[in-house]
Amino acid sequence: MNKQVRLASRPDGLPNDSNWAFEEGPVPKPREGEVLVKISHISLDPAMRAWMNEGATYIDDVKVGDVMRANTVGEVIESNSPKLRVGDAVQGVLGVQQYAVAKPKELLKVDPSLAPIQSYLGVLGWPGMTAYFGLLDIGQPKEGETVLVSAAAGAVGSVVGQIAKIKGCRVVGLAGTDDKCAWLKELGFDATVNYKTAEDLRKAIYKACPNGVDVYFDNVGGEILDIALGLLNQGARIPLCGAISQYNATEPVPGPYNYLSLLVNRAKLEGFIVFDFLHRYPEALQQLGQWVSEGKLEGRYDIVQGLENAPKALLKLFNGSNTGKLIVQIGDEPA
Amino acid sequence: MNKQVRLASRPDGLPNDSNWAFEEGPVPKPREGEVLVKISHISLDPAMRAWMNEGATYIDDVKVGDVMRANTVGEVIESNSPKLRVGDAVQGVLGVQQYAVAKPKELLKVDPSLAPIQSYLGVLGWPGMTAYFGLLDIGQPKEGETVLVSAAAGAVGSVVGQIAKIKGCRVVGLAGTDDKCAWLKELGFDATVNYKTAEDLRKAIYKACPNGVDVYFDNVGGEILDIALGLLNQGARIPLCGAISQYNATEPVPGPYNYLSLLVNRAKLEGFIVFDFLHRYPEALQQLGQWVSEGKLEGRYDIVQGLENAPKALLKLFNGSNTGKLIVQIGDEPA
Repeated sequence: MNKQVRLASRPDGLPNDSNWAFEEGPVPKPREGEVLVKISHISLDPAMRAWMNEGATYIDDVKVGDVMRANTVGEVIESNSPKLRVGDAVQGVLGVQQYAVAKPKELLKVDPSLAPIQSYLGVLGWPGMTAYFGLLDIGQPKEGETVLVSAAAGAVGSVVGQIAKIKGCRVVGLAGTDDKCAWLKELGFDATVNYKTAEDLRKAIYKACPNGVDVYFDNVGGEILDIALGLLNQGARIPLCGAISQYNATEPVPGPYNYLSLLVNRAKLEGFIVFDFLHRYPEALQQLGQWVSEGKLEGRYDIVQGLENAPKALLKLFNGSNTGKLIVQIGDEPA
Repeated sequence: MNKQVRLASRPDGLPNDSNWAFEEGPVPKPREGEVLVKISHISLDPAMRAWMNEGATYIDDVKVGDVMRANTVGEVIESNSPKLRVGDAVQGVLGVQQYAVAKPKELLKVDPSLAPIQSYLGVLGWPGMTAYFGLLDIGQPKEGETVLVSAAAGAVGSVVGQIAKIKGCRVVGLAGTDDKCAWLKELGFDATVNYKTAEDLRKAIYKACPNGVDVYFDNVGGEILDIALGLLNQGARIPLCGAISQYNATEPVPGPYNYLSLLVNRAKLEGFIVFDFLHRYPEALQQLGQWVSEGKLEGRYDIVQGLENAPKALLKLFNGSNTGKLIVQIGDEPA
């Protein structure tokens, strides 16, 4: 059987049990040109919350009744295509389920001998790509500049900070526990601020950025974006990656009060979507892989066991209780 | 005597009479290397409101007791410098007064035989330069794209729209009276919306932009920025030129609720200050002058007579009662 998690209804605020349906169906059969993948790891990403809302964002919403969309890695266990063989490890958007049929063009073959397969959902996957293109293409950090990163102990933020260090920047990370901050220090961050315990958050961030901010990599929006706007240096860049503080809001959230700082400081706030850089994934994968092999770049994985725990685990992204890439492992479950 | 308007106190909200002091002093004497300028026209610009607040923005504030800062044009009537001669027409930031002493490097010699001298405060001055660099460098409009302009009948907006037409764009202008909208149509704007009388402003703007918006030139901020954000096409650019709807706010104004549209649409919001393009003024002046001489670009001037009317006239910028460049003419006053 194929266990699946489907969207049962659209959430109002934080998703809860009533939004999900657990189903079992037959394992699907690949047709000519298709393969069957046994999923081993499912990625939980903040974007999934947006996909649960009605209405397209940069891609279609998930329809009520459909298997919840998710990025996954797994193994080809049946192939009707000459392009992939049984035993090949692949990455693809196969959803929160145990098995899926896909066409080879919907899958990316990955090499688990280079890095553990879950890396292709983390440092060498979407989060790594997001950090790589968002920081380097949009943020364009220069040696000696200050790079501020929110959600810095998250899957994207931790890679952003490490790449910024590789590029010779002073890197300041914001995270929500002392443990996370300690890990960021291990990764080479120059300063960290625990945004949940700081007595005066603005003061604490200002103190950590004595030379202002040249690049603010924004994963969170809200108050922290406003504080960062107040710290911008002339010509600063804000890659707009996400706004996790707002994804569960049930009322309109005011935008950054301080946005005219962009004008005064000739700065820019620029959104990007990692999928627009698809044609450059090979370049990024090569570079990220090299940094990993040189020990300059590492990922941390927060792995939850069991498909049935995926819905609850997703909430960890919104209460900040995960460190690094949040993944559901289902590989050991019986077919 | 030299009549002057000085900043008497800092305004809270809209400036009023108590914020200004009218004074008369002796006409200053130029020292060696300086010239004396008899000012003929004083430019009234939205930025002046920001300069009245305490604290630097992109330049220092005006100190209480000082002559109010303003851009001006006038004539050299006494010269102790070989670089300028009596009779030369010049532009400079000489303040709200009749006479000022300046060094030649603080002045730009202009040619009133090419265009009326007030043009150097309008189409061929800061507003023209602001439109030129903001639209072309930050906005980067491409043929066939839709360019939306707010405060479109203002000194900057009207030039933005005309340049966008020259570049082959579909141009939509927002203005606050039917007369202004009619003028924009004369200038070649493809569509206009009277934002003060539109029954449903969002609907009206959406209707005027059936293909979405590729460049939104923002002079106003507030609700209109939010509506424009909702209309962005993928890869859209928002040159952030001003936020006149907020300059007199006495409480914090929420930023654009809809700013995450920048993310979804991979768009950017980028501030700029025209003074950063000083080194390219000759290029812009040459190009703008050519368009004027070809009849492709025109300015409209809202000219108020008399120095003593400058403070009241400034308010026209904030209630939207000026069309085109707002200028105070003092040239005919006796010395």
